Amino acid sequence: MIDELRALRLIKERFGKNSKEIAVGIGDDTAAISANSDTYLLTTTDSQVEGTHFNLNNISPRTLARKSVAVSVSDIAAMGGTPNYILATAGFTKNQDEDYMDSIMDGFQDAEKEFGVKLIGGNLTSAKQLFIDITALGEVGKDRIVRRAGANIGDLIFVSGTLGDSSLGLKILNDKKNILNGDNYLVNRHTFPSPRLSLGREIANRNLATAMIDISDGLLLDLSRITVDQGSGASLYIVDIPLSEEYKKHISDYSKDTYEYALSGGEDYELLFTASEINKEAVLSLSSEFDIRITEIGIVKDELELNLVGLDGKKFEIEKRGFVHFSQ
Amino acid sequence: MIDELRALRLIKERFGKNSKEIAVGIGDDTAAISANSDTYLLTTTDSQVEGTHFNLNNISPRTLARKSVAVSVSDIAAMGGTPNYILATAGFTKNQDEDYMDSIMDGFQDAEKEFGVKLIGGNLTSAKQLFIDITALGEVGKDRIVRRAGANIGDLIFVSGTLGDSSLGLKILNDKKNILNGDNYLVNRHTFPSPRLSLGREIANRNLATAMIDISDGLLLDLSRITVDQGSGASLYIVDIPLSEEYKKHISDYSKDTYEYALSGGEDYELLFTASEINKEAVLSLSSEFDIRITEIGIVKDELELNLVGLDGKKFEIEKRGFVHFSQ
Repeated sequence: MIDELRALRLIKERFGKNSKEIAVGIGDDTAAISANSDTYLLTTTDSQVEGTHFNLNNISPRTLARKSVAVSVSDIAAMGGTPNYILATAGFTKNQDEDYMDSIMDGFQDAEKEFGVKLIGGNLTSAKQLFIDITALGEVGKDRIVRRAGANIGDLIFVSGTLGDSSLGLKILNDKKNILNGDNYLVNRHTFPSPRLSLGREIANRNLATAMIDISDGLLLDLSRITVDQGSGASLYIVDIPLSEEYKKHISDYSKDTYEYALSGGEDYELLFTASEINKEAVLSLSSEFDIRITEIGIVKDELELNLVGLDGKKFEIEKRGFVHFSQ
Repeated sequence: MIDELRALRLIKERFGKNSKEIAVGIGDDTAAISANSDTYLLTTTDSQVEGTHFNLNNISPRTLARKSVAVSVSDIAAMGGTPNYILATAGFTKNQDEDYMDSIMDGFQDAEKEFGVKLIGGNLTSAKQLFIDITALGEVGKDRIVRRAGANIGDLIFVSGTLGDSSLGLKILNDKKNILNGDNYLVNRHTFPSPRLSLGREIANRNLATAMIDISDGLLLDLSRITVDQGSGASLYIVDIPLSEEYKKHISDYSKDTYEYALSGGEDYELLFTASEINKEAVLSLSSEFDIRITEIGIVKDELELNLVGLDGKKFEIEKRGFVHFSQ
């Protein structure tokens, strides 16, 4: 049980130091910040809800707090933007004590350092299930913003990192309870996602992408959001979908279909984007610059559908809706 | 049970029309808006959690959605600002169906019209208890902003409207279940709070207030936030505290102390502000201009304490922490 007035004082002690852009920050009901008229203000919100997104025995409070911010700033990365500020709402149950809240604050401070953001406000409430809701604010140059819409027929489709690790990691986590301190690559990919902030910003700065999104609900669903939902379609080369060595080692324990988690597992927080073929080399060169794998996985088509091109070159249409595991 | 993909489509249909300031709105993970460098960007977040802030049998979804926005924009009013945009996160349980969500959207549209805001983003999640979390964005001129800090010794203390109605209304609501459609003044003050947007903006525009806050946690606690927490104190004239006729009629059914709910009941969403004595007439003249009662209730003192001055002129110090009902 957390005493709210005391909690607010502790939060103010930790997060109350304001920079000059912050006229009013932590300690008031409303934050006031200076905005820039040359940029778009970006704002996005995401939740982590106990029982839906996490279980208390599977993630430490510090990791949970960091992840809740990571997931939000990933949306800003997908527009090529820079996150600046976060507001955090926490719903605590009777089971959380001051130590727990202290660790949550540690996680927010981790996120401040890692992602270059400042906690400027939020809200504490009591709840029957723990939840953390993060609103992130950021900015992007008006001539730099990359949207979901914009892919042209014939554009190549690229993805950062490897896919499916996070959802496979979650399976492993749920199988083997209480491995909080275990050092498992796939589990870490689930609990410590790496939003691709520098990469996203650079893709935007160099005007390389025609459309971009971060993969939160699985490759197929998020790909449909930048193609089918925008009036185009796509062919994916299934053998080119990037899989980690650890994924390849463990996937057979959980699925007969090697690509199941990579195609529709979710929570990858990798960048999925389209680019004109003339920018292919420029895109691929970002890989060594940022030390992040970047893979060409398909092409934008004019038919309103997603096709997977298999090993044998045979195409099969994906029943988009049915294929997707939709639990959140 | 709500189908998320279908829900997102319905939301986009209702809220997807963007004005020219909104580069990216509903239908993307992140919203992009134009900001103004002459103003501060204001941002605040508030939650309505089932079991903590409301019960399903006490409030309709439409009213709940409107209220969740009202509570957030009230914080912006308290800085003298104008709310522009909202992001809404909804955690729905298995008990909510599409009709319920439809009514929630009705309530958001009510709020859009009434408060002049535009829903530009948000998030849907499943949860074990219903919650709505609103982030409101607004702006205020850099030379107009009114903060919690700023009250000077000798400033007069003013409050808008009448106090205690909302918390007494909640008591009545809990006593008499299923009076959702009843037309009870006190209950309506609880379920349909009126954030004082025009009044707050005008107080700021005319530079009348030295400090301001909206009363969400009760007069005493919120008064301490603009006085004791800022290094001053206050004397309140108890007989001047504005009570509605309905409050006076019903308070004796719930408390032996006529002023209990008015002093510490919470959820009034009235403006509490301090002003120099030379601005007294200007402040009081706002009352007829906006047709909102404005009452002088006390004076800012230099001792770090809150005093209540009773009918007989006798002072007694308030044990601030103990006096406050802290349930949210």
